[in-house]
Amino acid sequence: MNVDGKHYRTIWIHPEHSGIIQIIDQTKLPFQFKVVNLDTLASAEAAIVDMQVRGAGLIGATAAFGMYLAAVHSDEKNFKTELIEAGKRLINTRPTAVNLEWAVQKQLMQISNCKSREACIETTLITAKAIAEEDADMCKSIGVHGARLIEKIHSEKNGDVVNVLTHCNAGWLAFVDYGSATAPIYQAHDSGIKVHVWVDETRPRNQGGRLTAWELSQHGVPHTVIPDNTGGHLMQHGLVDLVITGADRVTKTGDAANKVGTYLKALAAKDNKVPFYVALPSSTFDWDISDGAKEIPIEQRDGSEVRRMSGLYKNEEIEVMILPETSRVANYGFDVTPSRLISGLITEKGVCRANESEIRKLFN
Amino acid sequence: MNVDGKHYRTIWIHPEHSGIIQIIDQTKLPFQFKVVNLDTLASAEAAIVDMQVRGAGLIGATAAFGMYLAAVHSDEKNFKTELIEAGKRLINTRPTAVNLEWAVQKQLMQISNCKSREACIETTLITAKAIAEEDADMCKSIGVHGARLIEKIHSEKNGDVVNVLTHCNAGWLAFVDYGSATAPIYQAHDSGIKVHVWVDETRPRNQGGRLTAWELSQHGVPHTVIPDNTGGHLMQHGLVDLVITGADRVTKTGDAANKVGTYLKALAAKDNKVPFYVALPSSTFDWDISDGAKEIPIEQRDGSEVRRMSGLYKNEEIEVMILPETSRVANYGFDVTPSRLISGLITEKGVCRANESEIRKLFN
Repeated sequence: MNVDGKHYRTIWIHPEHSGIIQIIDQTKLPFQFKVVNLDTLASAEAAIVDMQVRGAGLIGATAAFGMYLAAVHSDEKNFKTELIEAGKRLINTRPTAVNLEWAVQKQLMQISNCKSREACIETTLITAKAIAEEDADMCKSIGVHGARLIEKIHSEKNGDVVNVLTHCNAGWLAFVDYGSATAPIYQAHDSGIKVHVWVDETRPRNQGGRLTAWELSQHGVPHTVIPDNTGGHLMQHGLVDLVITGADRVTKTGDAANKVGTYLKALAAKDNKVPFYVALPSSTFDWDISDGAKEIPIEQRDGSEVRRMSGLYKNEEIEVMILPETSRVANYGFDVTPSRLISGLITEKGVCRANESEIRKLFN
Repeated sequence: MNVDGKHYRTIWIHPEHSGIIQIIDQTKLPFQFKVVNLDTLASAEAAIVDMQVRGAGLIGATAAFGMYLAAVHSDEKNFKTELIEAGKRLINTRPTAVNLEWAVQKQLMQISNCKSREACIETTLITAKAIAEEDADMCKSIGVHGARLIEKIHSEKNGDVVNVLTHCNAGWLAFVDYGSATAPIYQAHDSGIKVHVWVDETRPRNQGGRLTAWELSQHGVPHTVIPDNTGGHLMQHGLVDLVITGADRVTKTGDAANKVGTYLKALAAKDNKVPFYVALPSSTFDWDISDGAKEIPIEQRDGSEVRRMSGLYKNEEIEVMILPETSRVANYGFDVTPSRLISGLITEKGVCRANESEIRKLFN
């Protein structure tokens, strides 16, 4: 999508150095747009851990390129062992991210027959590029399918503005391009449908306020940032027509793990008969798991994310302490929305209900 | 309750100067504990306007003492006219605060028969002290009734820790002492029951993180501050035994307007069979209203509360901008939790179900 009128993806190969991958340092947004080089496995790992890159699709693509960087710097003799080790290290960076493991496994499968380090380098590069391309294509398809839901509401409202609420950032910044939850919004907006987005701030890391709002601003989509506490009130008063969120992992039965707080919005949507959709590429499905709330491990992150807040002060981004050390904090990264609260899943293959038989019908 | 081991209320008469009222400057909490003198009507007005004091009970008591200060400095001849004028000025500081007008009217009624300035001073002091005392007594009773709910869970859990979740600050800082939502917690804690409190941060003004957490720290009650998004996940995993919130207005049918986000927690509590209680002194009932969501007007506050965040930087409290001006923000102050989601109301007269006939039975 566009940044200051210029087209960007979230990850790409350095135009002059094939051994360098470039990303947007998303920790600096929205106050600073900064492109960062990744030239080693360690830098790719750090980019994932430090959340310079985040979001299912982009983490997957970064892991894939991380495997490529590991191959570039691998030993002439031990390259296979080193790449298996690299895969383990990458998988350990974010335990909840299923795309990450998927991308690593894909790379390991592709290189299983490689006889030389050189072949490994070539194969991992081709695979990483393919994974990135596929990610962008999938998101584009999600946009096409999801935009029909917005279009339908738009026509039911006789051409009036459609109000979509979203939580966290499942935008193009979370993927290689387009996004999952935002893809239908961009698609609808670009085709002339009047859309307005309620953007949940998304504490504690404020990905909604910092990233989704920035994306939408850059693309010219009307939007309003709200504290996470606000969505229920808006739905009670008919101010939300549709909720679309992303997902970090979806069970084969349709339970969706997503940024903590998503479940609360799904409850409010159900209580107010507002359609609640989860947008995801099929790689987000975890086909081994049936009960999301019981089986999906939820990452607990560092308490400093809750205790400190980053913002602009005298034109410089600094962190202030918003909570004294005398109080303990907890920081659960995700929650699970049970399928019974989900109106449907928007995937690259189409929209389906959130239950096992409908999901299997679409993906078999 | 205790601050650094010493007992405090939120408002009291200066121990050495009967013409001076003292308060805690709550805008400075939790980073600085500062006691401020109010010695004129103007300083009482400013304390309310600048939110050095906040919360229904404390605003009422401050207005009552404000009338006393006005009497102290009133003219020998025109004291009656001046006090009527003082009442008007106080009522205008926070036009929606019901307790404020109630306290002022009570003072005006009490002095209506006073023949001298001296009598007025004496009467307003007695009345202000009575209003403060009554507020503390009501909260204490709420604590006694509510603590039984905690005790019951404590025994059902065979003496294990009872986890209570609360939203915003309905603590002793919002009243003269004890608080509403916190009163049962303090009562249970002081009687030796193991209680742990999940404190919702409560964006955008962070009253949970700033005030409730501070209160609980000072009184030695174990607690953990969480982003507002977290409660649903905790309830899904059996980590919350009971929710207690305060209320700004409760209809005669039991719908409760409280800090925005309360409704979302009530939905999660219902979905996970966690008891959800609202604690309130009976002065919070609005006997004229039946449908909370439709009839209670919801204040929209300044967007800067969402856009900016206050915190400590190099030992000084400053404000940082967390959201660029390129995005619109909305800031709804409250939401309404329908009575069907409320397990019961904890009042100074006892606990009752949130429906009209049960409420009427308790309050005749």
